[in-house]
Amino acid sequence: MPIRTSLCDLFNIEHPVLLAPMAGVSGGALAAAVSRGGGLGLIGGGYGDAGWLKRELDAAGDARIGVGFITWSLAREPSLLDLALSRNPAALMLSFGDFKPFLHRIRHGNTKLIVQVQTLDQAREAVEAGVDAIVAQGTEAGGHGGARATLPFVPAVVDIAQGIPVIAAGGIADGRGLAAGLALGASGALCGTTFFASDESLASENAKQAAVRATGDDTERSSVFDLARGLDWPAGWNIRTMRNAFTRRWSGDMIGLKQNLTAEQARFNVATTAGDTDIAAVIVGEAADLIGNRGPAQATLHQMISQAEEVLQRLGQLVEPDKED
Amino acid sequence: MPIRTSLCDLFNIEHPVLLAPMAGVSGGALAAAVSRGGGLGLIGGGYGDAGWLKRELDAAGDARIGVGFITWSLAREPSLLDLALSRNPAALMLSFGDFKPFLHRIRHGNTKLIVQVQTLDQAREAVEAGVDAIVAQGTEAGGHGGARATLPFVPAVVDIAQGIPVIAAGGIADGRGLAAGLALGASGALCGTTFFASDESLASENAKQAAVRATGDDTERSSVFDLARGLDWPAGWNIRTMRNAFTRRWSGDMIGLKQNLTAEQARFNVATTAGDTDIAAVIVGEAADLIGNRGPAQATLHQMISQAEEVLQRLGQLVEPDKED
Ligand SMILES: Cc1cc2nc3c(=O)[nH]c(=O)nc-3n(C[C@H](O)[C@H](O)[C@H](O)COP(=O)(O)O)c2cc1C
Ligand SMILES: Cc1cc2nc3c(=O)[nH]c(=O)nc-3n(C[C@H](O)[C@H](O)[C@H](O)COP(=O)(O)O)c2cc1C
Repeated sequence: MPIRTSLCDLFNIEHPVLLAPMAGVSGGALAAAVSRGGGLGLIGGGYGDAGWLKRELDAAGDARIGVGFITWSLAREPSLLDLALSRNPAALMLSFGDFKPFLHRIRHGNTKLIVQVQTLDQAREAVEAGVDAIVAQGTEAGGHGGARATLPFVPAVVDIAQGIPVIAAGGIADGRGLAAGLALGASGALCGTTFFASDESLASENAKQAAVRATGDDTERSSVFDLARGLDWPAGWNIRTMRNAFTRRWSGDMIGLKQNLTAEQARFNVATTAGDTDIAAVIVGEAADLIGNRGPAQATLHQMISQAEEVLQRLGQLVEPDKED
Repeated sequence: MPIRTSLCDLFNIEHPVLLAPMAGVSGGALAAAVSRGGGLGLIGGGYGDAGWLKRELDAAGDARIGVGFITWSLAREPSLLDLALSRNPAALMLSFGDFKPFLHRIRHGNTKLIVQVQTLDQAREAVEAGVDAIVAQGTEAGGHGGARATLPFVPAVVDIAQGIPVIAAGGIADGRGLAAGLALGASGALCGTTFFASDESLASENAKQAAVRATGDDTERSSVFDLARGLDWPAGWNIRTMRNAFTRRWSGDMIGLKQNLTAEQARFNVATTAGDTDIAAVIVGEAADLIGNRGPAQATLHQMISQAEEVLQRLGQLVEPDKED
């Protein structure tokens, strides 16, 4: 008794769960593992390195996967879209920026267009453009995002989506979260944090260990790491990571960070290379609470699905007529 | 086929929904309406005005209600607790501060103790103290609160609650949200925003109209209104309200607000008296998206319950064996 929703039909998949296109973390092996497990894995095209993308597309082998891009970054290197489309991906996901210039090029073959949104206005724009699916992302998500929280945001997006499937993202790491997303009217979930420490993830070993130890209380949104990485993110989005010595030093003093930027970027780069998670960014969301020791991504996926099935059954029984009294 | 959970047994109520003790908004009439509808209404004891509390306790008549206090404020006026307990309330709810000094005085008669938490450490403290129920409150909530979001926070609290019923709060305004809370492992929901504009609410007519028009995107957390009201809230909590001309002027310039405090407080007080919602605080959460035109609180409650029943039935059918293919 698998959980079938309109998302399963849209992407022709068994389980309504997508691997988030985590930049630098969701490579070909992780995406392929989630797809082979019955979900849909998206490679994280990130900030646009054609060599990296080609390698990871190859690493996915013959698995049916998708690719996600950071829209404002893709606009600076649009040839990456051609590279991705040349592999005929099941889905192309665009987040953070104006997706409309890419619309007609994506509408090609069987590639479905997914757009991730953080506000109602963005959701309305996606509906008007007739995208194939909308990811409603809450602020509890790991990585970049906005201010709205998943639980009230998802039903608000469903109410304006005119039947376009809505995918819940942010804070969903187990079967309870997936079931909650379905209760809110979503057709499935897009998950990053819960796959971050998987065997197939490209995150560093130290970062994976830190993520597994972390709680959701240990995370926060800031722009510290965008500055440190020299990424000029547009206003409206910042990045949720674990708190560490670096965020504690700078998140309350962005002006100071700008004044010391060269030295701090050097310190950050050294730490990143060394896997020093006191200074380097460990990019996970509040769902860090809910991830235990991780193994293969497929085990995480199947555990999530079977827990969700149990939850849905329990919920159904709550309202069974014969259980009335 | 009502939705019965352990919360129903704990408070001997028909529906697992509690009215939040909204300071100055949840008076006796609103609390009584929710209780008479089959939930449990909590009067919002707020910042401690004995005359107000006595009047609202009287206004609840013979309805079985509870009372909620802001803990750090109650510590300054502990006699209010005696006043509340003298009416033998079904529940006493404490939020925002150290509840332990009040523990033994509340353990008296049939009054159950509910503690509202915003972090895992606070949740652990409540579990160790053996409270009767824990409200896990997400940042999307209207009014004061913390940084964690409801969807990932509730299951994390359930995982450490050792069987103590967990109540989800923040962003729950309709049956989809209630069903999501139950999916996350909560035994029910505590709702503020969805009852804010009810007929029986003590909010001003202008504030109710503004709340009904608002979307969740129009709200934000800040400390602007705490300063304006001269309330010295401890660090760790701020207040979610609608954005308006006053927050736009000051939320990015708290130092400036402090420097102009006397004049700005006067301006704020005039606006509050006049019901001018461009300057006065309209205290609602992200769930503002989900509240339509409001009538009696009981209608809102019953709509929420019947929608939740439909959602739970739909979810149960998703995993019915005979629907397998
Ligand atoms: C390490 C990491 C990197 C991410 N990078 C991207 C990205 O490059 N593009 C994108 O659209 N979203 C990115 N996200 C956000 C995800 O798309 C998704 O919204 C989020 O992971 C969902 O919340 P969760 O982390 O609680 O599962 C990233 C998330 C994480 C954890
Ligand atoms: C107008 C308003 C006033 C509030 N005042 C209080 C209060 O005095 N004490 C308290 O514990 N919580 C207070 N809260 C928070 C609620 O207890 C509860 O956590 C919140 O309303 C739940 O989220 P929701 O608004 O999305 O339903 C208030 C909320 C609102 C909307």
